Amino acid sequence: MLWRSGAPAERVDAVAVEEPLELRLHTPDGPLPLGVLMRTPGHDRELLLGWLVSEDLLPEVFTLEPDHENRNVWHLHTPDFARLAAGARLAVSSSACGVCGSGSVERLMARASPPSWAGGPLDVAWLSGLPKVLVAAQPGFAATGGLHGAALFSRDGTRLAAFEDVGRHNAVDKLVGWAQAQGRLPLSDATLVVSSRAGFEIVQKAVTAGVAVVVTVGAATSLAVDTAAAFGVTLCGFARGDRLTVYAGADRFPDFLQTSSSPTL
Amino acid sequence: MLWRSGAPAERVDAVAVEEPLELRLHTPDGPLPLGVLMRTPGHDRELLLGWLVSEDLLPEVFTLEPDHENRNVWHLHTPDFARLAAGARLAVSSSACGVCGSGSVERLMARASPPSWAGGPLDVAWLSGLPKVLVAAQPGFAATGGLHGAALFSRDGTRLAAFEDVGRHNAVDKLVGWAQAQGRLPLSDATLVVSSRAGFEIVQKAVTAGVAVVVTVGAATSLAVDTAAAFGVTLCGFARGDRLTVYAGADRFPDFLQTSSSPTL
Repeated sequence: MLWRSGAPAERVDAVAVEEPLELRLHTPDGPLPLGVLMRTPGHDRELLLGWLVSEDLLPEVFTLEPDHENRNVWHLHTPDFARLAAGARLAVSSSACGVCGSGSVERLMARASPPSWAGGPLDVAWLSGLPKVLVAAQPGFAATGGLHGAALFSRDGTRLAAFEDVGRHNAVDKLVGWAQAQGRLPLSDATLVVSSRAGFEIVQKAVTAGVAVVVTVGAATSLAVDTAAAFGVTLCGFARGDRLTVYAGADRFPDFLQTSSSPTL
Repeated sequence: MLWRSGAPAERVDAVAVEEPLELRLHTPDGPLPLGVLMRTPGHDRELLLGWLVSEDLLPEVFTLEPDHENRNVWHLHTPDFARLAAGARLAVSSSACGVCGSGSVERLMARASPPSWAGGPLDVAWLSGLPKVLVAAQPGFAATGGLHGAALFSRDGTRLAAFEDVGRHNAVDKLVGWAQAQGRLPLSDATLVVSSRAGFEIVQKAVTAGVAVVVTVGAATSLAVDTAAAFGVTLCGFARGDRLTVYAGADRFPDFLQTSSSPTL
């Protein structure tokens, strides 16, 4: 059913899987859909935990369990259901995906603080090399070309975790959920590397998880740059080869400070 | 404020603009936010018209006007406000962006029909060359590397329209809105070309606008392929050079039919 042109035409099979995942909040009045995420199945617990963290909805006490029959449904039970139910409409409207909704820098500032950074000075050579390491952790991308990847690196170069998903925001949420489950939030000594562009939602998720350094392979948008600047996040894009573009937070790079007397700056 | 590494470090200025756009529906009980889209400003009328078409919310009679003070707010007045208000929660939750929400093949089938195709047989050489023509119509991408592009081509090779946006779903909505304003819907003789990957939402928007042939530069997801197959849409990805991958609807290509006796198929 899938053909690649050429001579002779080849049959190819690998397609990135995209399915809707519903998180169902249980209340005394019955279940309530808290959100629906279009995602690549796998690491759904991490995805949902990370999404709850990103949305400022994670309860203190809860159980989060998969449905026994439908792999695209998970159940959330919590004594804090009233707060989540009240926030449900807002949450659904603002971030059923990570891109849209009424989120803005102002709204984020009302609920999140600038991440602290415990990783010391940054250098271009180290950061620009991270995407290559990320690609090595992306078997799904190699097979389908249709998955984004995201990884966390410690300052000594260790890759802490890496996930793939059709949605870049989901790949980041899976990382945040992994860190939450490990008790590693806030991630003040970790660098977030994403295979995609950086929109507002990527920086928003980084801020919520306490990540102060974000590196993407693609470009950043204006709202991503504004948000990074407002929260003191170092945001780098176009990390390819030994080069990268620093969109915000260049003060963490001694390289740039040293050359800042140059008239071209 | 923006630095690109190298020797000497260069200052770069161009960043793809991303801002939230709110569509405000006016009812006797006051204004109601119908949706918020993170988009690149410009062609906002086309974007909103296309989004309303994609969401099956476009009223028969309406006025759609920009706010006089805030460029990120538009006002929708319609005697059909009750239907839109009733659909508002669903619309906001399912497609404030085009990626997430409760949309699915089943829900789409309940409200849309398979597009008809009036463009005759397809050939690989023609379709695989369209992305190059699209890139030539993407000044924003050339400047920022952060914008997706989408274009419509007629069967004789004419580029009917092209738009850019930080969101690939927005770029497609701008095309659909353009076609709606021109009275050209359904687009049964047009080919949609998108600079990105194809997720479910791209095929959903194509189906809603009556587009039967979709070509993307990147990969397609499983749900995009399933949706295209269910609606008889020809979906091609990885259109680069003189090659492409046909994910669905290969029967419109005489090339493939001719070689289908090959054992490799």
